Amino acid sequence: MTIDLWDSKIEAMKHEDLKKLQTKRFKNLVKHTFENNAFYKKRLKDAGVTPSSITSMKDIEKIPFLTKDDLRNYYPFGLVCTEIDDIVEVHASSGTTGKPVVGPYTYNDVELWGEVMARSLYANGLRKHDRMQNSYGYGLFTGAHGFEKGAQKIGAMVVTISSGNTQRQINVMKDFNITTLACTPSYSLYMAEVAEEMGFDPKNDFKLKLGTFGAEAWSEEMRKNVEKRWGIHAAEHYGLTEIIGPGVVSECSENKLHINADHFYPEIIDPKTGETLEFGEEGELVFTTLTKEAFPAIRFRTKDLASMYEGTCSCGRTLPIQSRIKGRSDDMMKVKGVIVFPSQIEAGLMQVDGVSDNYQIIKTKKGDITSLSIEVEPTDERWKEGHIEDLEKKAEDEIYSILNLHVPVKAIEPKTIPRSTGKAKRVIER
Amino acid sequence: MTIDLWDSKIEAMKHEDLKKLQTKRFKNLVKHTFENNAFYKKRLKDAGVTPSSITSMKDIEKIPFLTKDDLRNYYPFGLVCTEIDDIVEVHASSGTTGKPVVGPYTYNDVELWGEVMARSLYANGLRKHDRMQNSYGYGLFTGAHGFEKGAQKIGAMVVTISSGNTQRQINVMKDFNITTLACTPSYSLYMAEVAEEMGFDPKNDFKLKLGTFGAEAWSEEMRKNVEKRWGIHAAEHYGLTEIIGPGVVSECSENKLHINADHFYPEIIDPKTGETLEFGEEGELVFTTLTKEAFPAIRFRTKDLASMYEGTCSCGRTLPIQSRIKGRSDDMMKVKGVIVFPSQIEAGLMQVDGVSDNYQIIKTKKGDITSLSIEVEPTDERWKEGHIEDLEKKAEDEIYSILNLHVPVKAIEPKTIPRSTGKAKRVIER
Repeated sequence: MTIDLWDSKIEAMKHEDLKKLQTKRFKNLVKHTFENNAFYKKRLKDAGVTPSSITSMKDIEKIPFLTKDDLRNYYPFGLVCTEIDDIVEVHASSGTTGKPVVGPYTYNDVELWGEVMARSLYANGLRKHDRMQNSYGYGLFTGAHGFEKGAQKIGAMVVTISSGNTQRQINVMKDFNITTLACTPSYSLYMAEVAEEMGFDPKNDFKLKLGTFGAEAWSEEMRKNVEKRWGIHAAEHYGLTEIIGPGVVSECSENKLHINADHFYPEIIDPKTGETLEFGEEGELVFTTLTKEAFPAIRFRTKDLASMYEGTCSCGRTLPIQSRIKGRSDDMMKVKGVIVFPSQIEAGLMQVDGVSDNYQIIKTKKGDITSLSIEVEPTDERWKEGHIEDLEKKAEDEIYSILNLHVPVKAIEPKTIPRSTGKAKRVIER
Repeated sequence: MTIDLWDSKIEAMKHEDLKKLQTKRFKNLVKHTFENNAFYKKRLKDAGVTPSSITSMKDIEKIPFLTKDDLRNYYPFGLVCTEIDDIVEVHASSGTTGKPVVGPYTYNDVELWGEVMARSLYANGLRKHDRMQNSYGYGLFTGAHGFEKGAQKIGAMVVTISSGNTQRQINVMKDFNITTLACTPSYSLYMAEVAEEMGFDPKNDFKLKLGTFGAEAWSEEMRKNVEKRWGIHAAEHYGLTEIIGPGVVSECSENKLHINADHFYPEIIDPKTGETLEFGEEGELVFTTLTKEAFPAIRFRTKDLASMYEGTCSCGRTLPIQSRIKGRSDDMMKVKGVIVFPSQIEAGLMQVDGVSDNYQIIKTKKGDITSLSIEVEPTDERWKEGHIEDLEKKAEDEIYSILNLHVPVKAIEPKTIPRSTGKAKRVIER
């Protein structure tokens, strides 16, 4: 196998060289944040950390975590470490609970973002001759903008269509001979549904061969469904506004998630104690941006649960590998003493023939007691077939085998669960 | 007065030097299009035009016009003059009637676009320290993307908020100390309305000082209203997808519209005969892109009606000046033998004290006979005052003095006409 990387100097570098590079950059980061921001100055001072005191990345553990509350307290620009005038781009997360998280970028930050996104998309298989339909929602969110920057850096064609108006999306996909779709996985499934309604066969009537999906938690089983439905390779993207947007992690042809650890230093911690965990142990992902200027983050707690290991991958990359995100600690539910993540329920459902990709988890709270039930749409064919209680039973069994918990499943008429053009709402409270 | 231009070498160049530059670039364009596109090859051959045959810009008149029908016939990529693989960005107009107009760009085209938009925004008064709220709708349209590129080239901060969610827009404007608003003029007025409902005083509670408005026909009177309402300077933008998007014209501090004629060669023609008109005469604007690679246009008929003159402006720019667009030939209505443009009606309405910026022109067709009537919202105060028939009468008189035509005006309750976050729908057919 020949190695075909975007930046082999970095992506295939020796582990010890990466550690040296990280340490050097971390020293610069400490200097940059100490000198340019009052919050960081105090924090670093209190922790007794100075650029010259750093001998290895292990020293990072002296510094307290950065939390969402810190970001809120310093909204909008209190954590900026450059002149405000040096900022050329600002994005923000939705801020469904309180103030949004603001992501300010200098020119160099925008360049960096384009670079790590190019690296990620190249790892997915995107090339100069490809034509990307960018169906992430443009606007304040980082998604569409990050995919645009990375794909253009590779030299691919970017069609800036944003989300919504799904019939038009299908026409553009057909007319422009689109090869690559960028959007949330659930929106890609809704697109397939609309394409079928318009009389197309998603697998054979388009030139699509690659999906670059993200901004949503989805299971490996859902990925297989997307791949089957469109006849494409579906790649996963992971990132977050607080760090840079998408581009934190690159998924390679071996379906391994390589952390761009020359720019984003990863740690896994015990979410309860804050203790740093070893490679292979599962915990909360923490990131430090080693090279960002306007809005660096030192030890930002992502609330995303995963494990991580160092190793070499048969794709040729030596960058550390993280597991698929198991779930966000925010999404964790406790039902009769059992920890449940939506992704586990999805994985169970997707095992059952005749189940479609449309489902909702209904969460009911009575006092302190949480109960779950599931509504799922069978495929049209399976719905017409009848004996729908067999399907419900099978789904309940699959979920039981994963969770050791009985969760009632109800099959409901196809096309009754609302479709989304962005993140699908998988858990609803009633 | 000191001259402060983005690119004084071009913007203040001598008229004869500009002509030389245009002629040289036009030769290159003929060569580029002839060698790389079958449609242009035939067209140029038939017209007997070769690069070596060109001695002055006058030779352009031998080449037939490019029309919207040509663009439709060659949808989506039939008029592209580079390898398709060299395209990195694609935009499109709405395509309300039939197929959309597709705008493909190479890297160099994107660079050029950023440059002419920087020139335009700089002429408007935008500087590095400014913070732009980019409230044009992102997506396939060129608007938001063009403003982003130009503002970033100047080094200003761009908040990529897109249109919609107007309460959030107001919060961002306040929290981020926004100095510059980019959107359609009608959306800026709706924003002012929402800001007031939220308890703000648009003139005094924000740091806003500049509006960079476009994508919509509006009158000089409407501009004054916008300026008064927000306490800002409001600048006009003109451009179109077929040429490059916004950035074709730069409005200077003297409220003069300078055509970026080193890149976009302008002509004014008689819309009926196609004959080229002299400076000062009113007719249809025709543009030729002198430097674009992927999607050049030779003599594209814009359907926009304006006049043009050569001259020097006290701002220091020597680039040709075009009048405000009087209207699109598409928008022209003929009522009892009188030619009517919506902008003329707007100009009349805006003369009347107590009239708000919200109005609609109702067009009724019975056989061949077109009749017009107008619905307009008075301001809240004026509505409460009563004697509303006086206001109606005054508006009718103002319109009569412009058009020599009686158009009935009906004052309707404030906040009954639908608001828009993009282009306002001013003419409706009933």
